[in-house]
Amino acid sequence: MVDEGEVSLTLDEVRDLAFAAMSRVGCDRENADAVADTITMAERDGCRSHGLFRLPGYVASLRSGKVNGKARPTCARIAPSVLRIDGDCGYAPLALRVMREPLAELATSQGIAAAALVRTHHFAPLWIEVEALAERGLIAMACTAYKPAMPPAGGVKPVYGTNPMAFAWPRPGGEPMVFDQASAVMSRGDVMIAARENRTLPEGVGIDAAGRPTTDPNEILRGALLPFGGYKGASIALMIELLVGPLIGERTSPEAKAADVEDGGPPRGGEFILAIDPRRFGNADGWANSAEAFFAEILGQQGVRLPGDGRRARRRQALADGVRIPSALHKTILELT
Amino acid sequence: MVDEGEVSLTLDEVRDLAFAAMSRVGCDRENADAVADTITMAERDGCRSHGLFRLPGYVASLRSGKVNGKARPTCARIAPSVLRIDGDCGYAPLALRVMREPLAELATSQGIAAAALVRTHHFAPLWIEVEALAERGLIAMACTAYKPAMPPAGGVKPVYGTNPMAFAWPRPGGEPMVFDQASAVMSRGDVMIAARENRTLPEGVGIDAAGRPTTDPNEILRGALLPFGGYKGASIALMIELLVGPLIGERTSPEAKAADVEDGGPPRGGEFILAIDPRRFGNADGWANSAEAFFAEILGQQGVRLPGDGRRARRRQALADGVRIPSALHKTILELT
Repeated sequence: MVDEGEVSLTLDEVRDLAFAAMSRVGCDRENADAVADTITMAERDGCRSHGLFRLPGYVASLRSGKVNGKARPTCARIAPSVLRIDGDCGYAPLALRVMREPLAELATSQGIAAAALVRTHHFAPLWIEVEALAERGLIAMACTAYKPAMPPAGGVKPVYGTNPMAFAWPRPGGEPMVFDQASAVMSRGDVMIAARENRTLPEGVGIDAAGRPTTDPNEILRGALLPFGGYKGASIALMIELLVGPLIGERTSPEAKAADVEDGGPPRGGEFILAIDPRRFGNADGWANSAEAFFAEILGQQGVRLPGDGRRARRRQALADGVRIPSALHKTILELT
Repeated sequence: MVDEGEVSLTLDEVRDLAFAAMSRVGCDRENADAVADTITMAERDGCRSHGLFRLPGYVASLRSGKVNGKARPTCARIAPSVLRIDGDCGYAPLALRVMREPLAELATSQGIAAAALVRTHHFAPLWIEVEALAERGLIAMACTAYKPAMPPAGGVKPVYGTNPMAFAWPRPGGEPMVFDQASAVMSRGDVMIAARENRTLPEGVGIDAAGRPTTDPNEILRGALLPFGGYKGASIALMIELLVGPLIGERTSPEAKAADVEDGGPPRGGEFILAIDPRRFGNADGWANSAEAFFAEILGQQGVRLPGDGRRARRRQALADGVRIPSALHKTILELT
């Protein structure tokens, strides 16, 4: 039985909903398809905060003219092992599609390669990209920033974004091991969902605008999220800002916020992606089996799963049964123009 | 006044103590010098757990014949952007010296380069290496594993090492921004020092052998340390194991422990080092100023420092005043043969 407050959708219906909404506000076929695909993969894997929930934001940032719905991203090799993808001020998913094959080829020829994604608007989960590279046999790492949400270690005022980092390890004959985690204890998207659903959050997720601990998601959205593991998570967030901002000539989180028109969609920002060919590091014959033995050691303990396993279980269920979204969100999306 | 239980030493005296002890047990000049230099830098920067405190372990692993005190590390370019440094079963510091210039040159020519350090015995802090690369104008990242100390997320039995990751960002005209942090809430070295000094530890540092929370460092050393930030720190530790083990053909933490003779010195293991030339990522003219503006934003908040600033303050003091070590440790070192 479907809850009265929910609508049941197949994944094709999710994709059609997203594609139609993006097309209605002026996105061309190629860009709408890339965004719809990203939203569908997020819904499929149960990552609600990156799914249809984001569609109103995508649409708003097209309507405001901030984002180019007809972007034609380009890819250039700017150093022997470095690619630069210029997103033409469109959404990240199409730029990432343009990047994928050239980066995989460069990593294979060089052993390791990096891609700098600039002039994009990022609203997508990072696991999509690292998983796609791992399915091509590569180890991949990706990170991005956003707008200030977390204080530096010792401070109370937001400076760092929630700055996620994703990592994927290819497993020949199986699905890659993938993690994708915000530098914050909880992602801003999940705090927004908690606020919408009037849920309180555990201690340690965030502070209010005066720097006091709170469990109220609305207070946290006005205050700051906290990094995972205290100053150590803050160090990771700082590293990510430097890699996706100054290094590649894109905006840090404070710069992205200062330049943003606050239409509800993503600000302009960058992404840093690393790809490594495990056949080029001196263990071409042994890397896969050695990793599998290590995974077996980890999984030998009761109650232990590898990162990403829960997401894949949700994927299998969604592929069989479709997904459910709140009726109110469904109605909002149908009315987006 | 020097405490009765302490001995005051200049940094030259620290180096001489370490060099003499290593030489007495059969280390040749080049290897003893590299180890003594690493120990001296650790003492200089107030990183007690990597300083003279480790010397008995270094000596024990030479006496047992596990480590090659006359190692001649070699460096080979095994892919266009990948170096492999074979440590010849010596201590890591000499292998890292051999790596430094070739890695800096390769990163400069390729934009990004990686080094796989294999057949080394690692007892050194990682900031030394990333700081040295950043002083050559490069962004650097390094990580290593050790022996099982932390459970995987959801488990209680140690599998991962405390697996540190270090990162350095060059600041033209100033000292690099550097962090070096264990994947554990607290490093094993610091827990060992707490045990020696009969201090209890904060909640959340570790669990006993039955998986119960404890604040007793001895119980934690028999049980397990915990990753920082729960499952997110565990993900980082897992990523590091894969990069320094299977990828480069070295041992994971469980493999290192299984093969180790437990003489008190470091097991054989690997290190993964990444070097990035910020002049090759499309922002050659702006990267440094953009980062400085970001650092200024961070430092605008009261009570906030950049990672590594505390260590540098200790360095300045040690360069002026020397260091103090426990008399008992000093006596132990003089008797090492």
